[in-house]
Amino acid sequence: MDTETEQRVAASFNSQGLMKALGATLVYVGDGEVHIAMPASPNITQQHGYAHAGAISSILDTACGYAALTRAPSDSEVVTAEFKINLLRPAIGVRFLAVGKVKSAGRLLTVCTGEVHSFSSEDGSFKIAAIMQATMANVRREARAS
Amino acid sequence: MDTETEQRVAASFNSQGLMKALGATLVYVGDGEVHIAMPASPNITQQHGYAHAGAISSILDTACGYAALTRAPSDSEVVTAEFKINLLRPAIGVRFLAVGKVKSAGRLLTVCTGEVHSFSSEDGSFKIAAIMQATMANVRREARAS
Amino acid sequence: MDTETEQRVAASFNSQGLMKALGATLVYVGDGEVHIAMPASPNITQQHGYAHAGAISSILDTACGYAALTRAPSDSEVVTAEFKINLLRPAIGVRFLAVGKVKSAGRLLTVCTGEVHSFSSEDGSFKIAAIMQATMANVRREARAS
Amino acid sequence: MDTETEQRVAASFNSQGLMKALGATLVYVGDGEVHIAMPASPNITQQHGYAHAGAISSILDTACGYAALTRAPSDSEVVTAEFKINLLRPAIGVRFLAVGKVKSAGRLLTVCTGEVHSFSSEDGSFKIAAIMQATMANVRREARAS
Repeated sequence: MDTETEQRVAASFNSQGLMKALGATLVYVGDGEVHIAMPASPNITQQHGYAHAGAISSILDTACGYAALTRAPSDSEVVTAEFKINLLRPAIGVRFLAVGKVKSAGRLLTVCTGEVHSFSSEDGSFKIAAIMQATMANVRREARAS
Repeated sequence: MDTETEQRVAASFNSQGLMKALGATLVYVGDGEVHIAMPASPNITQQHGYAHAGAISSILDTACGYAALTRAPSDSEVVTAEFKINLLRPAIGVRFLAVGKVKSAGRLLTVCTGEVHSFSSEDGSFKIAAIMQATMANVRREARAS
Repeated sequence: MDTETEQRVAASFNSQGLMKALGATLVYVGDGEVHIAMPASPNITQQHGYAHAGAISSILDTACGYAALTRAPSDSEVVTAEFKINLLRPAIGVRFLAVGKVKSAGRLLTVCTGEVHSFSSEDGSFKIAAIMQATMANVRREARAS
Repeated sequence: MDTETEQRVAASFNSQGLMKALGATLVYVGDGEVHIAMPASPNITQQHGYAHAGAISSILDTACGYAALTRAPSDSEVVTAEFKINLLRPAIGVRFLAVGKVKSAGRLLTVCTGEVHSFSSEDGSFKIAAIMQATMANVRREARAS
């Protein structure tokens, strides 16, 4: 991964207020793959104290979007056209890791898949809490600015 | 809508830390339909200052989940099995309203549809920012507690 | 609906071998809305003799695609980028009707929703067997030919 | 894979009229994984002569469903609750192979992922034409018969 792309992703990520509110951090930017971590906290819970499907979706959508951005033309940004997520089990854990990967990159649309790992402790073992299939759209930067 | 169901939904909603972090409020509980509002704020933004797809998904998933809960057996709770969301346009606005509705309620699964309205001012006109199709699963309350 | 668009949709529909194999017919072409009918037959069944989820998906995807085509630029065709379908109940009936509608039409992507009605007799009452949310992509005709 | 499960899957598959109409065949039944092949034919085409998204969806839904069945309780059948499919490129080829795999099997719901490979010749190289994320529901056999 070239440094320029990493920096571009990091700069964009750091300007997302939602990621800050969720306590999420960008932990890996590779070619077509991005990881985002989120610790358990009162800000992300549903009614039982587990991670809310919306919080899980938020970090996974973001990981998929930035994975797509690593493959987008340099004059383009990426916006989420749509995604679908399956919650496989209650998202219980001390930490969550969203892994987004490019499955297929076209000129206009990039299809990504991803999963969220829930870590019940810091020993490294995890369960898959959710899986996603997402479509990202490339948008010319000029077009957005106008 | 009987008061007991409304209270049950409100109590559950108020215990969701994510809804608090997003500044979301429960504004309507009807039979098979729930509305959740969210004002624009620094906590919900993506990199351009618009509402993040994850924030939009979070309130819409929650609205669909509670819509399902109004039709669930009284000894059951509802968890999100999966959802799919299309973001129809950038979520620009001063306020967002998620409207979740039950489309079909079975013994175990409830299918909901929903949309998020983005209000550019307080005059009442809005655009549809996103639409969702979701599957909610009824879970026996005892089963969850064990 | 102008006659030219209707004819364009009908010509395309009639060249789809799958629709012929399913016994499907084009029954309505409106502005942003298309209906396709399919009678019960041995060609569309799953293991219990009901309509297969794949047959239901096929006519609904096609109805959504042609609904999108009625809103596409005249030099474009439409291809399915993705869809999501919920099967609400077993598709039991003597006839099925897929109703596809445009929800939002952009320059490149059109988002449609649709449902399949299952008629248990010819008296006109029906149940909703399935609902869909789909993303169609406009493709320049020249681009496809090359 | 025990022979009884293979036979159960094969017997069910062979009673699906749609699979016969599409010329599809069951080529592999493993533990949590099923493959279905479909040759190019006039029965599966869309307007350009490529495989129709509906035909691609049909074999992939079926592969996912039977993959789920290999993990279902012996007194249960499997029905498709919902699926989402992305069509990654035009489905051009002489043969298509749907590969369905169980990602997570619960008591009531099984989540599967799958992809369709399109073979442009018989030399074995392929492209991924489509990917799916599906939710299958276990249904007690007695319940269905009643």
